[in-house]
Amino acid sequence: MDRLRLSISAFGADAIVVTDAPNISYLCGFAGSAGVLLVEAHCATLFTDSRYSLQAETEVSCARIHIAKKGLLRVVGEKLRHLQGRRFVAYSPAHLTLDQMEMLRSAAGPRIRWIKGSNEVEKLRSVKDSGELSRMRAAANLAIEVLDGVLCFLKPGISELDLAAEIEYRMKKRGASGPSFETIVASGVRTAWPHARPTPKVLSKNELVVIDQGAILRAYCSDVTRTVFMGRSPARLRRFYEAALEAQEAAKRAIRPGVPAKVVDSAARTVLRKHGLARYFTHSTGHGIGLEVHEMPRLGRGEDTLLQEGMVLTVEPGVYMDGVGGIRIEDDVVVTSTGAMDLTTAPRGLIDL
Amino acid sequence: MDRLRLSISAFGADAIVVTDAPNISYLCGFAGSAGVLLVEAHCATLFTDSRYSLQAETEVSCARIHIAKKGLLRVVGEKLRHLQGRRFVAYSPAHLTLDQMEMLRSAAGPRIRWIKGSNEVEKLRSVKDSGELSRMRAAANLAIEVLDGVLCFLKPGISELDLAAEIEYRMKKRGASGPSFETIVASGVRTAWPHARPTPKVLSKNELVVIDQGAILRAYCSDVTRTVFMGRSPARLRRFYEAALEAQEAAKRAIRPGVPAKVVDSAARTVLRKHGLARYFTHSTGHGIGLEVHEMPRLGRGEDTLLQEGMVLTVEPGVYMDGVGGIRIEDDVVVTSTGAMDLTTAPRGLIDL
Repeated sequence: MDRLRLSISAFGADAIVVTDAPNISYLCGFAGSAGVLLVEAHCATLFTDSRYSLQAETEVSCARIHIAKKGLLRVVGEKLRHLQGRRFVAYSPAHLTLDQMEMLRSAAGPRIRWIKGSNEVEKLRSVKDSGELSRMRAAANLAIEVLDGVLCFLKPGISELDLAAEIEYRMKKRGASGPSFETIVASGVRTAWPHARPTPKVLSKNELVVIDQGAILRAYCSDVTRTVFMGRSPARLRRFYEAALEAQEAAKRAIRPGVPAKVVDSAARTVLRKHGLARYFTHSTGHGIGLEVHEMPRLGRGEDTLLQEGMVLTVEPGVYMDGVGGIRIEDDVVVTSTGAMDLTTAPRGLIDL
Repeated sequence: MDRLRLSISAFGADAIVVTDAPNISYLCGFAGSAGVLLVEAHCATLFTDSRYSLQAETEVSCARIHIAKKGLLRVVGEKLRHLQGRRFVAYSPAHLTLDQMEMLRSAAGPRIRWIKGSNEVEKLRSVKDSGELSRMRAAANLAIEVLDGVLCFLKPGISELDLAAEIEYRMKKRGASGPSFETIVASGVRTAWPHARPTPKVLSKNELVVIDQGAILRAYCSDVTRTVFMGRSPARLRRFYEAALEAQEAAKRAIRPGVPAKVVDSAARTVLRKHGLARYFTHSTGHGIGLEVHEMPRLGRGEDTLLQEGMVLTVEPGVYMDGVGGIRIEDDVVVTSTGAMDLTTAPRGLIDL
């Protein structure tokens, strides 16, 4: 019940309605895709439907299970309507649509006082305990092993899609439930798209390939990027690469408990600026990662969240030039009392094949 | 601009704010994961961020592209604030969280009259045009070919996870961008979970295996289930299976334009009731499918939506007994003027291996 108690006290409410699937999974273990968790001071109830009854019984030990025969939020609302005494109910405006809130409000009736939450469970989730860290290390190792295992496929003639297929196949064969996001394999000028989807384009000699991939293992995500050159890399690209790597190292060095997240972003940007490349770095330096591949905190401009021991972050500066190509180096690190410790430990040099 | 015009007229508004990714993809072709589409009477604008600028330029022809430097909804709201004349703006309460709506409203200011939509774009999407049907047929064929290709792996000793890995690998090798949902491979008593996730459990002789899988090909989904017995199936299971198949055939026969969706569900249930199995059929008979694997309409109790020519539906009755196992037969069909036509054409008998 620890996480449940922490969440009730974080919200300062009599009850909390939790609708976000990763939050539900974090609080009670249920991994099905249809569920609402009602947390009260001394008990919790998971509402799901008949498709998930056996799964809920297997996965959930700290909450009662209620198999709803109609819409989950309607059933939760009706239960709230009959609550004795307790009337301050917290909800999460980031995870309820307008329709869902209307359903919940109307089923719960006018006696309930609604308290607007602001990512309390996500804040709890951002700091990982030792069990979570060990799962995240395993997910990180898996991603590195998969990357290592597919380098032999990087030959002129294989398509981006086929390479992505090999990567995701190897993830699943190693026990992953799947990729933590659609695997990115981008080649040639397409590497300048930070979020390129793999296409039928085949890899050619003397072009860049960016591979950005991660796996979900026992519910936790990893996220790693390496950049490859299909041949002997020209000096100009190597300069861009070294600048990105220097930016990543500076960002990692900036990581320690108590530092605002934006300081890490700024450390990477300062290095790229020194190399005249700041304007080619078009996204944030990184993000939290855990049950979701993008979690709190964001390592970006204006992000004041203070880093804490146990947070897991990606650090992923990049350099993207339209018509030329892109480079990205991404690792997952955990914040320790003495600074960033890599979860992903593969070599970080530009891979010339 | 056809779909854009239709959507403006369906909402009866001066402008529409579209936030749901599949709706955005349907209306303007953009497939990135961060976008907001603002549709006005004579133009449309896609708002996205710098990570997607090249992708947006490639994919979007019927809308202008605006690369936002801060939160997309804030930028859209600020644009609405400066709209001349037009002030009736529609939004979709099913696809905006409370936080997002607050951001949009406060950025747009008090002059805007907000009109609550109710799934107008989803209704347009539920009826497929010939281009969409041809993509959906290709996605359906791909799923059937993959299923056919992995039957040889169904031997005692392979794990559910490994079989799922083979399935998803073959999808991607055939050009799919990925599975349309996490592939279900359930064996033994786990087949009684309609939404079982694959586990390290190995397949054994004389047990049921349910394989429920589908692929996304050129943005469109397929979804097919077949049930296999690892040996010579006992008479009792064959009876359950025949009942499920009879239910599926009855449901398909009930499909034609103008029929309420619930009538199709009821046709399946009536057959199972006749066999004394109605209470073991714990979910709806099917659902629309297209850009998303679950779309409108639902083929379930109380669903009054009238079927229309061009809708694509799954028909998937099942029989699930705790401690014994489950059976499901699922096909994708298109509603034609003369009734249901199968998109997935693989044999439907219980597969004894």
